[in-house]
Amino acid sequence: MTDLKYKLLESHQRITPFIHRTPVLSSTLINEKAGAQVYFKCENFQKMGAFKMRGATNAILCLTDEQKAKGVVTHSSGNMAQAVSLGAKSQGIPAHIVMPQNAPQVKKDAVKDYGGIIHISGNHIAEREQLANKLIEEMGLSFIHPSNDLNVILGQGTAVVELLEERPNLDVILTPVGGGGLLAGSGIAAKELSSSCKIIAGEPERADDAYRSLKSGKIETNENYDTIADGLRTNLGDINFPIIQKYVDGIILVSEEEIVAAMRLIWERMKIIIEPSCAVPFAAVLKNKETFANQKIGIVLTGGNVDLSKLPF
Amino acid sequence: MTDLKYKLLESHQRITPFIHRTPVLSSTLINEKAGAQVYFKCENFQKMGAFKMRGATNAILCLTDEQKAKGVVTHSSGNMAQAVSLGAKSQGIPAHIVMPQNAPQVKKDAVKDYGGIIHISGNHIAEREQLANKLIEEMGLSFIHPSNDLNVILGQGTAVVELLEERPNLDVILTPVGGGGLLAGSGIAAKELSSSCKIIAGEPERADDAYRSLKSGKIETNENYDTIADGLRTNLGDINFPIIQKYVDGIILVSEEEIVAAMRLIWERMKIIIEPSCAVPFAAVLKNKETFANQKIGIVLTGGNVDLSKLPF
Repeated sequence: MTDLKYKLLESHQRITPFIHRTPVLSSTLINEKAGAQVYFKCENFQKMGAFKMRGATNAILCLTDEQKAKGVVTHSSGNMAQAVSLGAKSQGIPAHIVMPQNAPQVKKDAVKDYGGIIHISGNHIAEREQLANKLIEEMGLSFIHPSNDLNVILGQGTAVVELLEERPNLDVILTPVGGGGLLAGSGIAAKELSSSCKIIAGEPERADDAYRSLKSGKIETNENYDTIADGLRTNLGDINFPIIQKYVDGIILVSEEEIVAAMRLIWERMKIIIEPSCAVPFAAVLKNKETFANQKIGIVLTGGNVDLSKLPF
Repeated sequence: MTDLKYKLLESHQRITPFIHRTPVLSSTLINEKAGAQVYFKCENFQKMGAFKMRGATNAILCLTDEQKAKGVVTHSSGNMAQAVSLGAKSQGIPAHIVMPQNAPQVKKDAVKDYGGIIHISGNHIAEREQLANKLIEEMGLSFIHPSNDLNVILGQGTAVVELLEERPNLDVILTPVGGGGLLAGSGIAAKELSSSCKIIAGEPERADDAYRSLKSGKIETNENYDTIADGLRTNLGDINFPIIQKYVDGIILVSEEEIVAAMRLIWERMKIIIEPSCAVPFAAVLKNKETFANQKIGIVLTGGNVDLSKLPF
């Protein structure tokens, strides 16, 4: 067994008592529309409503007792904030959360519900990082990065571990790519656990930094953050990018209209609530029906935390 | 075994090959809010998105071959229209659907998708019945009533058969009440299959005909149809009312605001899409926490066919 495969399975065992085993759902009508067999790993039903519970829990459980006692801090536009809050609460330790001013109110409320201590920063990633560093210096907190941390990456990859346990014969697995944690973890899981399963990401055209990074061979950034897929506005990091370069077979770009249409199709036909971010890989499948025709496709539905007052329909 | 219990179990066996066995879901956060253990029978995941698939399928399967050949007709504000269309399609027979002008566009589209032939009537129930009768006379169609037909009633009751198979120790089961088919069928199932399980309905204050009917001992009608719970605007019938009188323990009225709040809570916390109609019984639980404190409660979530362009949030 390779070292990474061992660490992945160890992470899965570590977090299992603290997370939900989410269902894998499919729909005849969705399959007809896609011209393929699509299996959705429903992390929208995960604790706090998103896969980030996995990575946050794994990273927190890997801390020493001394580190745990001082507490943790993260910066996040939303789901990682809730995940670290709830993960820390379940271990009885304090969680400090740096959130941008423009984070959806529903996500700020959820962080408070989960016992997180909110610190508001400016909207740019650099401003969030600055405030988080200040808190680390002042209070000796341990930083849990939303995506660029190997324990977080391995934790996120456990969703694909479970998906492949239930559907071992998948031809391809798709995830969205934002900060790169889920994609890197899913890449490790897909390639270390299956000899033939491809791994592909969907990414918004309006935040196409990962697509450009794979092309150029170095981490590119976004000038424009104006996509409805609010979870995907972040950039890759120096820990997850080499993993993505090694394991990932490709990235498909989709438009805002394609994201909303895919999201609506899942809402209407499957009767489940998903965030715009996790409609992105399904939009990529619908956009490339010839490529995926008749394949067995796994898609990680990453979360269901939407602000119902601000729907795009 | 009583005759009704036998017929109920026979109906379940008859329709099982043609319907989904829907999941029973629960949520820690919902249980905390309700102060009770709530088990949701998720008929929003049923074929065509609602429990009415059960009753329609049962009624169609009970027809003679000669009747099937001529086809069926129903009138419906929505879900029964889709159920009869899809049920007829699966048996290869024609379905004629009388729909009111004000039926949601999403429901008209779905009927067409399922192969139903739409005939538009006025918005009042009497106008729908008149047009259906005309079609029956002209074409020899068999009428499938949305709620006032014993085979439909028994078909609807099979959702509670499955719920009690999974959760045999429920203290009480709640359903909404509109035309009375689901409530009558659920009453038969609850009382014939369990010695102690109560059966209670939730009903909108703005369409409180069933509540008034139980009080007066005769079928009362609604003057006002102005409730967001569009599936519950219909009246009881002479076949289901005596069953409801015999089996049902009570009806709880809820306001429009309580319906929307309960609906939103289920959307936000469970990440599933439900119609306003099926938030009504959960709203009744939230309104009467003392009555239901610490009980094991089953709730039939009746459907998930909402028009996403017209949400109340």
